[in-house]
Amino acid sequence: MSKARKQATAAEVAAAFPLSTYLSERSRWIDQALRRFLPSPGTKPATIHRAMHYSLFAGGKRIRPILCLAAAEACGGDPRDAMPLACAVECIHTYSLVHDDLPAMDNDDFRRGRPTCHKVFGEGIAVLAGDALLTVAFEIAAQCRGWPRYPHQRIILELAHAAGSRHLIAGQVADLESEGKSIPIHELRFIHQRKTSALLCCAVRLGGMSANCTPAQLNALTHFGMQVGLAFQVIDDILDITQPSEKLGKTAGKDIQAQKATYPAIVGLERSKQIAEHLTRKAFEALLPLGTRAAALHALADYLLRRDR
Amino acid sequence: MSKARKQATAAEVAAAFPLSTYLSERSRWIDQALRRFLPSPGTKPATIHRAMHYSLFAGGKRIRPILCLAAAEACGGDPRDAMPLACAVECIHTYSLVHDDLPAMDNDDFRRGRPTCHKVFGEGIAVLAGDALLTVAFEIAAQCRGWPRYPHQRIILELAHAAGSRHLIAGQVADLESEGKSIPIHELRFIHQRKTSALLCCAVRLGGMSANCTPAQLNALTHFGMQVGLAFQVIDDILDITQPSEKLGKTAGKDIQAQKATYPAIVGLERSKQIAEHLTRKAFEALLPLGTRAAALHALADYLLRRDR
Repeated sequence: MSKARKQATAAEVAAAFPLSTYLSERSRWIDQALRRFLPSPGTKPATIHRAMHYSLFAGGKRIRPILCLAAAEACGGDPRDAMPLACAVECIHTYSLVHDDLPAMDNDDFRRGRPTCHKVFGEGIAVLAGDALLTVAFEIAAQCRGWPRYPHQRIILELAHAAGSRHLIAGQVADLESEGKSIPIHELRFIHQRKTSALLCCAVRLGGMSANCTPAQLNALTHFGMQVGLAFQVIDDILDITQPSEKLGKTAGKDIQAQKATYPAIVGLERSKQIAEHLTRKAFEALLPLGTRAAALHALADYLLRRDR
Repeated sequence: MSKARKQATAAEVAAAFPLSTYLSERSRWIDQALRRFLPSPGTKPATIHRAMHYSLFAGGKRIRPILCLAAAEACGGDPRDAMPLACAVECIHTYSLVHDDLPAMDNDDFRRGRPTCHKVFGEGIAVLAGDALLTVAFEIAAQCRGWPRYPHQRIILELAHAAGSRHLIAGQVADLESEGKSIPIHELRFIHQRKTSALLCCAVRLGGMSANCTPAQLNALTHFGMQVGLAFQVIDDILDITQPSEKLGKTAGKDIQAQKATYPAIVGLERSKQIAEHLTRKAFEALLPLGTRAAALHALADYLLRRDR
């Protein structure tokens, strides 16, 4: 009864949630903070700082940092405390895109409707700009306040784990190695968990940590983050074949062209949509222990399921 | 009188220093620690972990981590406390070589007498192996004890600064952009300070921090590290034109071929040698406030000046 009551309320609050205003406001806050944390584009040598800014301010949706701030609020924290962690995660996400787009990897010419970093600055600078964004992520994260349950050491370990060779990078390696191969669904799940879910889940967990959350709250956020992360990648796979390039801001149909393993390729489009919906429902359930303060997280998960780009 | 006495003693101790035993013993310790800190080569996905091990255990001289441990001892610390920081710096150094060797950068086929990472594993994996080594560096550094004057936050900021877009990466960018150009000596010094000196100096400073060193001791180590770092790169430039490839373990004469700005190219070979000797003398002087405990650092600086590979 009490649980059902909470669920109804969280969903109700989420239904009336002013998401569009929320997204644009949070995006603006995050952009401002990123500009504060990063060396200005004129810092010598200018090329590398211009390249970092080019990729970081390319009109990304800021999903991960927004989730991070929302997770802080879901645990009763102040989103300003979560800001260094939100920005660190966004820098890591952006670095991974810059390197992923390189000719030696996915070889993409467009990202977010603009030429990719290496098309504008050359491959050498794109490699270095990715390296610099990864490095500055740790510099930014280390500027957080630190919390009784989660001191700086714990925060840095959390970030390094999620971004490291057993998670984010493991996913990119497995993705690279799966091209042109027929792989079973559990192997694809391994790739998605690492390539997308690990960092997204880390963003949510770090948000909670910045509110000095309890172990039970961290547990709820972890389940939420994992489900939303998996749903996010399934939807990405779906959009790659159902949306035109102009809408995506990147070359559509790349997955089929590169013979990538995707959910639609393995289980079909309809079943993929069902899986994304199922994962999102499980994400909603994970939020129950957090009560109505999790309304923003609920609304964000719903938005990520319904997005068309 | 007291200063002169100290100098004589430090130099005397250094003269009788069993450097060869010291280097091989420290190298072995560092290799053991690196194996403990890194995921084993069999960790899934195996490719990335094999590539990381391939580059990290390629017979490098471990100059930076050995300097880090020696700096800890020079301030009365236990080298075991410095080990996570020494290993973190070595991971960052190795990542920078892996990315630097890529076709988009220096395009080197050999490093330490073996094919470079991208020649063995392909370019995509080499980019990711570099990324993974950079990420694991922060994971390893965060495992240090932390010290009253230098808590984890300070340690991570120190490492991220030295490795970031204003130092290590700035040097690589400036190096890349100087190819084929005639640049003045102060510009070359800017490149060397960032490309080589910043990380080497950081290794020395972190060693001191692991001994909870005083500000005065940190100041002495900083001056020592900067001078040794600059001398190190001047000697590297000299060896590139005076030693055969077999000796260097990498393609000799690459600097001339790529029309790189180097000390010998700008001021000639003899003047370059004088500069390296002058910088090393200044490094010795910087050690004076540390007394005889700095004998290992003194001996190491002397060894780096005289090395032939």
